[in-house]
Amino acid sequence: MIGNEIHKFAKELWPINRSITGDGVRETLRKISKHLPELKIKSMPSGTNVFDWTIPKEWNVKEAYIITPGGKKICDFSKNNLHLVGYSVPFDGEVELNELKKHLFTLPDKPNAIPYITSYYKERWGFCLTQEEFDVLENGTYKVVIKSTLLNGELNFGELLIKGKSNKEIFLSTYICHPSMANNELSGPTVVTFLAKWIQEIKNRDYNYRIIFIPETIGSIAYLSCNYKEMKKKILAGFNVSCVGDDRAYSYVPSRNGKTISDVIAKHVLKWTDPNFIEYTWLDRGSDERQYCAPGIDLPIASILRTKYGAYSEYHTSLDNLENVVTPQGLNGGYWAIRKAIEAIEKNKKYKVTTLCEPHLGTRGLRPTLSRNKLPKDINLLSDLISFCDGKTSLLEIAESLKVPIWSLDDIIIKLKDENLIYETE
Amino acid sequence: MIGNEIHKFAKELWPINRSITGDGVRETLRKISKHLPELKIKSMPSGTNVFDWTIPKEWNVKEAYIITPGGKKICDFSKNNLHLVGYSVPFDGEVELNELKKHLFTLPDKPNAIPYITSYYKERWGFCLTQEEFDVLENGTYKVVIKSTLLNGELNFGELLIKGKSNKEIFLSTYICHPSMANNELSGPTVVTFLAKWIQEIKNRDYNYRIIFIPETIGSIAYLSCNYKEMKKKILAGFNVSCVGDDRAYSYVPSRNGKTISDVIAKHVLKWTDPNFIEYTWLDRGSDERQYCAPGIDLPIASILRTKYGAYSEYHTSLDNLENVVTPQGLNGGYWAIRKAIEAIEKNKKYKVTTLCEPHLGTRGLRPTLSRNKLPKDINLLSDLISFCDGKTSLLEIAESLKVPIWSLDDIIIKLKDENLIYETE
Amino acid sequence: MIGNEIHKFAKELWPINRSITGDGVRETLRKISKHLPELKIKSMPSGTNVFDWTIPKEWNVKEAYIITPGGKKICDFSKNNLHLVGYSVPFDGEVELNELKKHLFTLPDKPNAIPYITSYYKERWGFCLTQEEFDVLENGTYKVVIKSTLLNGELNFGELLIKGKSNKEIFLSTYICHPSMANNELSGPTVVTFLAKWIQEIKNRDYNYRIIFIPETIGSIAYLSCNYKEMKKKILAGFNVSCVGDDRAYSYVPSRNGKTISDVIAKHVLKWTDPNFIEYTWLDRGSDERQYCAPGIDLPIASILRTKYGAYSEYHTSLDNLENVVTPQGLNGGYWAIRKAIEAIEKNKKYKVTTLCEPHLGTRGLRPTLSRNKLPKDINLLSDLISFCDGKTSLLEIAESLKVPIWSLDDIIIKLKDENLIYETE
Repeated sequence: MIGNEIHKFAKELWPINRSITGDGVRETLRKISKHLPELKIKSMPSGTNVFDWTIPKEWNVKEAYIITPGGKKICDFSKNNLHLVGYSVPFDGEVELNELKKHLFTLPDKPNAIPYITSYYKERWGFCLTQEEFDVLENGTYKVVIKSTLLNGELNFGELLIKGKSNKEIFLSTYICHPSMANNELSGPTVVTFLAKWIQEIKNRDYNYRIIFIPETIGSIAYLSCNYKEMKKKILAGFNVSCVGDDRAYSYVPSRNGKTISDVIAKHVLKWTDPNFIEYTWLDRGSDERQYCAPGIDLPIASILRTKYGAYSEYHTSLDNLENVVTPQGLNGGYWAIRKAIEAIEKNKKYKVTTLCEPHLGTRGLRPTLSRNKLPKDINLLSDLISFCDGKTSLLEIAESLKVPIWSLDDIIIKLKDENLIYETE
Repeated sequence: MIGNEIHKFAKELWPINRSITGDGVRETLRKISKHLPELKIKSMPSGTNVFDWTIPKEWNVKEAYIITPGGKKICDFSKNNLHLVGYSVPFDGEVELNELKKHLFTLPDKPNAIPYITSYYKERWGFCLTQEEFDVLENGTYKVVIKSTLLNGELNFGELLIKGKSNKEIFLSTYICHPSMANNELSGPTVVTFLAKWIQEIKNRDYNYRIIFIPETIGSIAYLSCNYKEMKKKILAGFNVSCVGDDRAYSYVPSRNGKTISDVIAKHVLKWTDPNFIEYTWLDRGSDERQYCAPGIDLPIASILRTKYGAYSEYHTSLDNLENVVTPQGLNGGYWAIRKAIEAIEKNKKYKVTTLCEPHLGTRGLRPTLSRNKLPKDINLLSDLISFCDGKTSLLEIAESLKVPIWSLDDIIIKLKDENLIYETE
Repeated sequence: MIGNEIHKFAKELWPINRSITGDGVRETLRKISKHLPELKIKSMPSGTNVFDWTIPKEWNVKEAYIITPGGKKICDFSKNNLHLVGYSVPFDGEVELNELKKHLFTLPDKPNAIPYITSYYKERWGFCLTQEEFDVLENGTYKVVIKSTLLNGELNFGELLIKGKSNKEIFLSTYICHPSMANNELSGPTVVTFLAKWIQEIKNRDYNYRIIFIPETIGSIAYLSCNYKEMKKKILAGFNVSCVGDDRAYSYVPSRNGKTISDVIAKHVLKWTDPNFIEYTWLDRGSDERQYCAPGIDLPIASILRTKYGAYSEYHTSLDNLENVVTPQGLNGGYWAIRKAIEAIEKNKKYKVTTLCEPHLGTRGLRPTLSRNKLPKDINLLSDLISFCDGKTSLLEIAESLKVPIWSLDDIIIKLKDENLIYETE
């Protein structure tokens, strides 16, 4: 089960302090590129204008913690990188509890969870801790140490282009900006890493693949600002990959258009993977499809997920971990759902019969020569498939008409091509 | 509550004997023009051919009544103008009860109601009375007096044209031919009078308004015969206004096409006004939309009503009054439903974002700079709205996608225009 | 009731041994042509290539039976032609029971039924018998006699072309290849015979009719190979007629397209004939629509049936007889459903009003001159119909909008044409 390998890789990436910029992003990309030597690690300098946004300064952290009046070290960044509000400015000083509390964040309704909080575009500092830790803070003077830097530097991302036969592309995007959390979001980059390894091995793949590992939001905006014209021309289908690691549900978030081939494929695959999959709407979106499907960008990008961001109680907290939330089984399911979607796109050809009227199947051994009152089910499926091969209906549309998963037609397509009864059009 | 003013005005119009022609129509129009000094009172002479119809003679009544054998005056027109069948020819003579009965009309299943009956296009005379009155008529000779005139004259109607910026029109039509009945139909002309007053005060209105007060059927046919070519060119949307005065339901009757902007707007407004509003079909129609939507005319005219003509027990009887059926509250609801529909048409623009990808809302104070796990609802609404501003989707379509009333987007649109984040297209 | 005549004719055809070729087919066609003297009996020689198929040798049978070790004659073809597997090659010899059993066919789950089995395209011999007969076969040597011939000859079919005014065609196809079975299939050719008689008598019929009596599958393929280009140009609508003789259900099998005029008409007629009619899908098909709707042929052919082939327990057995399965009442229903469908196509014109706005119905006696609060239902229907006569909406679409069967509009259409209120467009 490939889920085991993916889970192992997620554990390796777990401790790294990722953010939208900084050493942790580069280290994460380097570890991914060990699996994907062709991955190019790219950069854009701080201050670059990308559409309505500006690439922020680069943020790095040496250490960060608080010493209580009683001398106890708490909120230690080296123990859990969620303790420090993302993009906290440097600070070194003593503050009274009342003052400190303005910089502390907890989740009262999840008393044992450290929340995940960032402040990318406004300079401030802060710490996150559990409500339980917060509740026992004593009055007095606290020593606060944040040895961070916020300097001109660069925003990094990984890009992998895999060539196919046609000039059309399939696009996968995932993000590498979240610190130590599992479903949202070590599941995305780790699953995409293993999907990319598999894609490189697909024989005779039709499509080019564009696979990017970026920081969320600013990364997709930055990437689009350089590439959107080419992407609009080439991308046939694609998926934003996030929250693909737990084993509690399958979910789908549509593109803005809602009817692109990515949407149709995603729903087809999920329906046959889990009939109870959850179908969200565009109003439930919350990841980089916000950029890929923005007006004027309009790429055909949908999302196939396990339990969606925001839809599980551990979301954006320290509880979203690799033990209780993300599992090898969960990652395995996420991997295969997206792999089947990609396979479906590769398989989704149009076929045309080589003869008018039904072909004579009996002479080809494709139908019994003795006619009785019921045909075996597989022969009906073959005849039904032939009846739709008009050169205009895609295999996916045919599979939908036949009420079977597209992959159940693989063997029949091979037989019919071998017998020269159908051919691929355009 | 404007319903009180409308109700007061309806009481003022109540006693006038209206029909499709005659002094009562002119008097009604004069009273309306006190509220709307710009209203033009127009006329067409009897005998004029209008499509398949001819403007009938003008009908006026001085007095009409019956004296029973016992000397009692009954069916007195001066007490209730419904007592006389509309367009009754003059008559002065004595008739036996058996003969008289051929000219009497009652409603056996509503024994205390005087029915409303007319005979515009065939000359006859008749009286309407309650079944209770009818049941006690004694045998003997009755004296019948109808001092009416049926002479060449004119058909009158009121027309109010209000200028806007564009060359497109919004059309309102209502009728002034019904004698003393309240929902059907003093509610229509009184509500339209107050809508017209408000429309004249809309600042920067985009559209022209064509508002007519006509006799039903012959009036709309006559008006169309002179204006339909211009109307087909200019009218963007419109409503036939009838039965907008009781407080028992909201209803919608579609245009023949069923999918015009008037239909979409009417259903949107009613859905958000009363989720239990009644949606009728074209087969339930019964007012001037029969002409406005006739083949070859095909104007985009729908109806927003309270309880529809024919759908309430007092319909077309003396029981349809200003006490038990039509109320200030009912008129208020009718007024606001149509006003909101008109406002919706004025608001229904297409907007386009000024930037590719999502704009940076944090720097504009439109989104918290601290990112936590849930966004406030109003910020989601703002982001959702932006995500649909592609210059091709109307605000109404966006409101439908967002599952909110179009008027709930007013403030956000202002904010986004102020921040130069969206602009109106075409 | 015409069902009686059809049933009588079916009885006359019952004993003939039909197959896809041979004397029985010709005799059946000759008997049909007694009813339809214009019917042309045509032929194609064995060995002719028709698309992916080849016309097989002609098969005729003199006698066929088995003598048991005890001297009893069983499986006697002269008693029931289902006893011999269709297209059995000649055989004359003695075989042991074990060997014989390889050539015997029964239906274990219908112990008193002889199955219907054929082997058109692979040379073999075999007998069919009831499970009850099979179970008592004693060990020993059996004498098997099959005096059949399988020689170059011809495939026969009947074709009847009936001229109409336009150059468009309505197509009916039924098959004459099944031996002594009733619903599937003496009902088809007998009902079509009587439909053809009626069609010849339609006064002023608009359309040409192409009616063919063919062997199933090879017959339609052969016929199409010669005629499909002309058929694609001319055929407006049509029905494959099969299983129209029992009285247990009405059913519909769509064309591949599913939305042709034949589909719409079939569903309209069946809905108003039997609200519980069964709507099958293309995946349930099983007769010559497989050829008529094959990719590249794409004719607008649907099926109107009583109980569908494969959907009743007597299907393809000796129990499908003229006593218990097919009845005069059943044939009558099948006849009228298809006749109403044909009439509907002939009636399905587009009409346009001659006046703008509603016509003045009162002066024409089409509406009461006294206006009261409810119109009679038939006057509403007339007004409703007029309201849809825009020259673009077909009468069938109007009937659907009015929620009435198209034939309920016959009288109104006549009245409106008489009054010159509507005219037929194109």
